[in-house]
Amino acid sequence: MGKNVLVAQSGGPTPVINSSLRGVVEACFDHPDEFGTVYAGHHGIEGVLKEELLDLSAQSREEIALLSTTPAAGAIGTCRYKLKSHQEEDFQRVVDVFRAHDIGYFFYIGGNDSMDTANKIALLAREQGLDLVAVGVPKTIDNDVGDSEFELIDHTPGYGSVARYWALMVQGAEEENRGSSPSDPVLVMQAMGRKIGFIPAAARLADPERETPLLIFMPESGLDLDDLTDAVADMVRERGRALVVVSEGFPVGDLGELRDSFGHVMFSSSALTVERVVVNHLNEVGLPTRGAARGNMPGTDQRHNMIYASTVDLEEAYQVGRKAVEIALRDGNGYMATILREPGEVYQVRYDKVPLEMVANSERHFPEAWIAPSRVDVTDDFLRYARPLIGDSWPSIPLVDGRQRFARLEPIFAEKKLPEYTPQAYRAG
Amino acid sequence: MGKNVLVAQSGGPTPVINSSLRGVVEACFDHPDEFGTVYAGHHGIEGVLKEELLDLSAQSREEIALLSTTPAAGAIGTCRYKLKSHQEEDFQRVVDVFRAHDIGYFFYIGGNDSMDTANKIALLAREQGLDLVAVGVPKTIDNDVGDSEFELIDHTPGYGSVARYWALMVQGAEEENRGSSPSDPVLVMQAMGRKIGFIPAAARLADPERETPLLIFMPESGLDLDDLTDAVADMVRERGRALVVVSEGFPVGDLGELRDSFGHVMFSSSALTVERVVVNHLNEVGLPTRGAARGNMPGTDQRHNMIYASTVDLEEAYQVGRKAVEIALRDGNGYMATILREPGEVYQVRYDKVPLEMVANSERHFPEAWIAPSRVDVTDDFLRYARPLIGDSWPSIPLVDGRQRFARLEPIFAEKKLPEYTPQAYRAG
Repeated sequence: MGKNVLVAQSGGPTPVINSSLRGVVEACFDHPDEFGTVYAGHHGIEGVLKEELLDLSAQSREEIALLSTTPAAGAIGTCRYKLKSHQEEDFQRVVDVFRAHDIGYFFYIGGNDSMDTANKIALLAREQGLDLVAVGVPKTIDNDVGDSEFELIDHTPGYGSVARYWALMVQGAEEENRGSSPSDPVLVMQAMGRKIGFIPAAARLADPERETPLLIFMPESGLDLDDLTDAVADMVRERGRALVVVSEGFPVGDLGELRDSFGHVMFSSSALTVERVVVNHLNEVGLPTRGAARGNMPGTDQRHNMIYASTVDLEEAYQVGRKAVEIALRDGNGYMATILREPGEVYQVRYDKVPLEMVANSERHFPEAWIAPSRVDVTDDFLRYARPLIGDSWPSIPLVDGRQRFARLEPIFAEKKLPEYTPQAYRAG
Repeated sequence: MGKNVLVAQSGGPTPVINSSLRGVVEACFDHPDEFGTVYAGHHGIEGVLKEELLDLSAQSREEIALLSTTPAAGAIGTCRYKLKSHQEEDFQRVVDVFRAHDIGYFFYIGGNDSMDTANKIALLAREQGLDLVAVGVPKTIDNDVGDSEFELIDHTPGYGSVARYWALMVQGAEEENRGSSPSDPVLVMQAMGRKIGFIPAAARLADPERETPLLIFMPESGLDLDDLTDAVADMVRERGRALVVVSEGFPVGDLGELRDSFGHVMFSSSALTVERVVVNHLNEVGLPTRGAARGNMPGTDQRHNMIYASTVDLEEAYQVGRKAVEIALRDGNGYMATILREPGEVYQVRYDKVPLEMVANSERHFPEAWIAPSRVDVTDDFLRYARPLIGDSWPSIPLVDGRQRFARLEPIFAEKKLPEYTPQAYRAG
């Protein structure tokens, strides 16, 4: 029997994050001679610091299989906590917990930052004589893992599902908008992705032939609120209505403070979402009709919704999880499992590895060449890139008594072997 | 060949409104001796006033069949315009258009108000010697058609689908909230239904055993923003997190105005949605943790989303449309087709008729007895009522090239026979 395994998730969830988790876990189970007990860090690295290690080997195989159609991070939890390089005590604690539980393999499901963390933990462990193999598993709805040349990874698991969310949701919104105008001529929809526009860009998949009055405002557009208002007003004049997809990262400026009737400041303008600012602004100054603008803000739903999940994304997320285990066995420490697209007309991918360091030091931007000259649309090259990722079929989600049957893991934890963690004690000691 | 048919929709759309439309149209097609050409009022009664009559008999039968999985009102359009009794010229114009196009049957898909309108049009037509049969087809996501005793109708087509939307969406939200706390301990979700709480109530279907920290704030709760804040804070103290479903009609009070840095009023407090007010208030005063509240506002998506549609609702919407045609043939003028629940443990309905007048003069409220004593939940009696409406299976929505294949009707209109409509000209006589 080999060393034990620790798998953890970091950052915002995706609909397919548990599919990667399942891939890691089932691939480990397939190699009982190489791997011991498979643990999950409960709520990510925070659970490791607290020595809360959920025993996945003790779970029923049926529940593990159900992870594939269980969205978001409810199964093992995620965290926003980041290990920072100056917080040496955090890193030391992780290594100590790994040593105490004989962890030899660390699979970290996350974005660029997590790849950096995984790398640093493995280096520190090795410095201290602990033979730890750390392998990263990419994950993000934002599609911002990797580099801008798409050489480290073609797309991140999670993105295909949120792209499908926007493709299909905007199709329904078009039925609403076409049917309900002229009284509701404008429908504004706020998309996630604070810094990068892959998510709002995917709305174009709803209408690749550009038959609908759809305008897309990405954070990279170079436009401001007045430009947006002008573009929407022009569209309403021309077509009588407009569908507006706006990124939560679109710059709407500072709009002051909300005061009560006594003049007390209630909230700052950050109390308004981009969607609210745009809807209010259109209703105040922008609409050349008597109808009103409406706004939808699906918010976190786009990252925890299994119904829209792409079957392509689900499968790739699973395979990339399995690939990480294969890398750990064959190649050892210091890689991220990755998805690369094969050249040619037919969509095909291969699973490969890239050094964690390269990912950690990379940054992806939405390609400037994929933004249309109008700045309110994407190009067909983007559509050729994104279209295969949303797949061609519905996910098969089990229903029991009318509800989705999600995985339910038993709260079986490894016995704690270390004193409770306080950074102070580590610094002192 | 019988007289021609006019079908129209009114008010906000639902995911299954076109299923009722298909039911009406196909039932008319089944009786070619009794019915002539089937027209749709383009954008509802507004299209009738403008003499814009879409020819449904000229459409391909395949597109008519696809109406069942085409959400919202994009196919024939709806309107917010209401015929008011003092606007006699509007009613007269409708009768004139009906006479000009030999319309003998009028099917009106809508809520209580529409049943009133249909009744008045039929009465005026008959006064003027035009033998018009008007039959109503119920429709609303709010489930507010009929009376509070559920004797006129058990539930309105459209409600089962939005109930399923909330049941399944809140399931995903629970995975997010459980997995992402403690950094995001509270997730607020705004539900439609300004005056009546059937939609937020359906969130309980996500968790009938009450295992999750779900709080439901209906417009009828009798609570205010401070009560809401207290209840959420208590839940966060007790469970570490909370899922908050709040009606758009929940009274959050008047919160002042938004001023820019020069003190100019930018927007009134109506610029904030209930979801924004609640999220801001929780973040300012209400959370006993360091984590933040987040908010989602799906907005119109809940009424134009086919993916969540209930198969029970889709089938009932279709059948109630067919029933309206049967009523027109067998019973004549002045009824609404209705859905009544059979007594017994097993869910079964029968389709019947009720006089339009009775519906027009009725009002439904959410039963007080279905609100839990805590005021932030519903009772099991409500669950027994609502559970069958969401069905037990996924809708079968055709995909073509990765997108939903919605019905596409050709823009074939009846030739106009009357001068353009202006109320002034009608008033002048």
